[in-house]
Amino acid sequence: MELIFLGTASAIPSKFRNHSAIALKAFGEVFLFDCGEGTQRQMVKLKLSPMKINKIFITHLHGDHILGIPGIIQSLGFRGRTENLKVYGPPGTSFVINSMMNFGYFNLQFEIEVHEIKSGIIIDEEDYRIECVKTNHSIPNYSYSIVEKKRPRFLKDKAVALGIKPGPDYGKLHRGLNVEVNGRIIKPEQVLGKPRKGIKIVYSGDTSPTDGLIDLAKDADILIHESTFQADNADKAKETLHSTSYDAATVAKKAKVKKLFLTHISTRYKKSLELENSAREIFKNSVVAEDLMVIKVK
Amino acid sequence: MELIFLGTASAIPSKFRNHSAIALKAFGEVFLFDCGEGTQRQMVKLKLSPMKINKIFITHLHGDHILGIPGIIQSLGFRGRTENLKVYGPPGTSFVINSMMNFGYFNLQFEIEVHEIKSGIIIDEEDYRIECVKTNHSIPNYSYSIVEKKRPRFLKDKAVALGIKPGPDYGKLHRGLNVEVNGRIIKPEQVLGKPRKGIKIVYSGDTSPTDGLIDLAKDADILIHESTFQADNADKAKETLHSTSYDAATVAKKAKVKKLFLTHISTRYKKSLELENSAREIFKNSVVAEDLMVIKVK
Repeated sequence: MELIFLGTASAIPSKFRNHSAIALKAFGEVFLFDCGEGTQRQMVKLKLSPMKINKIFITHLHGDHILGIPGIIQSLGFRGRTENLKVYGPPGTSFVINSMMNFGYFNLQFEIEVHEIKSGIIIDEEDYRIECVKTNHSIPNYSYSIVEKKRPRFLKDKAVALGIKPGPDYGKLHRGLNVEVNGRIIKPEQVLGKPRKGIKIVYSGDTSPTDGLIDLAKDADILIHESTFQADNADKAKETLHSTSYDAATVAKKAKVKKLFLTHISTRYKKSLELENSAREIFKNSVVAEDLMVIKVK
Repeated sequence: MELIFLGTASAIPSKFRNHSAIALKAFGEVFLFDCGEGTQRQMVKLKLSPMKINKIFITHLHGDHILGIPGIIQSLGFRGRTENLKVYGPPGTSFVINSMMNFGYFNLQFEIEVHEIKSGIIIDEEDYRIECVKTNHSIPNYSYSIVEKKRPRFLKDKAVALGIKPGPDYGKLHRGLNVEVNGRIIKPEQVLGKPRKGIKIVYSGDTSPTDGLIDLAKDADILIHESTFQADNADKAKETLHSTSYDAATVAKKAKVKKLFLTHISTRYKKSLELENSAREIFKNSVVAEDLMVIKVK
């Protein structure tokens, strides 16, 4: 699994930070979380083709989180994509995507499936589950969790003892399906180990700290939380319904996550060290995300 | 006068080239010619505030020339702009700009005045004139010329001899207005020198080479011409209604311009030298434009 910070700025980009976008390569797919202006060029810099994007998840409909979408869509048309693109976002997303279809001359050979979300599980696949919760911003914002459904180990010794031959039956049992061997029904639990916890990644979007996000992020391996402001700018954060580095670190601590990445950094912070240190006063394993940072997640 | 190349890529951006945009600081204004995705961040890199943009001129409605506009508009709203923004572009521009107004949540305290253009003079101010001509691309594309109206020298000796006192009357005469001095009408031509040629800059947008553009660029100080392809890719240029470096240089030569800048460079050309040299075979004063290049024009 690979987590890629494409853009880590807040409303105004800087020389070093592009508008918000995070790519996640996982489960044979590429997900994009938010897609600020210039995201396609950030992808070019990392040689990550937009053709590989399967699903885009939008936290909220502020420009710095969505204005890269028309460029991605038009580039996909230009490159001849035929596979549908799925876009998930708050109510209003359909209207915005439809408006983006009026953006000059271009041809698409694929459909854009828009899913307007509400809090709860929005995708439940064999390998992963994606859940979202509405958090606290000036306009509706949703935070997302991505949870890997990690299969228990396949206990080959037990399978052999039960007379099951190596081959497709092993795969079926590992995927949770019964098989019939010499007239007997073998159930998965007869050949599988204990349940295993899969990787969990949570992304806040724009929000002031909320209990809903703490619940969503419970025991996550990685929490990516906005930190528009540093700890000493709490009033400004409160006023604009954003978070400080303290807020983000407190959410990380309460949710007992393993690692915190701070993102959506205001242009007023030229260097990351002070911001990072202020978060570490509350939650030690805090890192300020930088553009084009690639994190291997195991 | 300052000419600023903000983006010099063609349809796909590269690590080194952003999508098309050129800023011109002149006559106390800032003009933007085309505005591809990511233009606002390119401006940030040069500390050029979008608040200073007075007019945007669009050559054509392909995404790589317009997708930076919503970001600029929303940023202007965010920064509290109140001055109207003028946008000039081909028929269809109003529809596109109106669609951009449906892009999520934002507030504007200013109006966007859209002017859909046709070939001819589109702006005729005291200090400058802007003219456009429809050229030859897969969709309607307009090339623009910006011509400085340079005032003749003010001949102070003659003014003194005519009994005109230094003060507002000097300014009026220099601006072409009659003044009355001791009951006599003094005409500007009595105190002004010979007509002087002002600076002329021409920008092609996307086009295959056309006579209309040669006429528009006649004797220009600077011609900025697209060169999506190098000379050896003439078939591809013809097929896509773009130009090669030879085409651009030939237009420059025929129009007898002083200097040619090549832009809109395909990602296939990693280095500029070969492209530049191929243009120089036809027109010696050719330069490949690079992102964030700033040219003082005198």
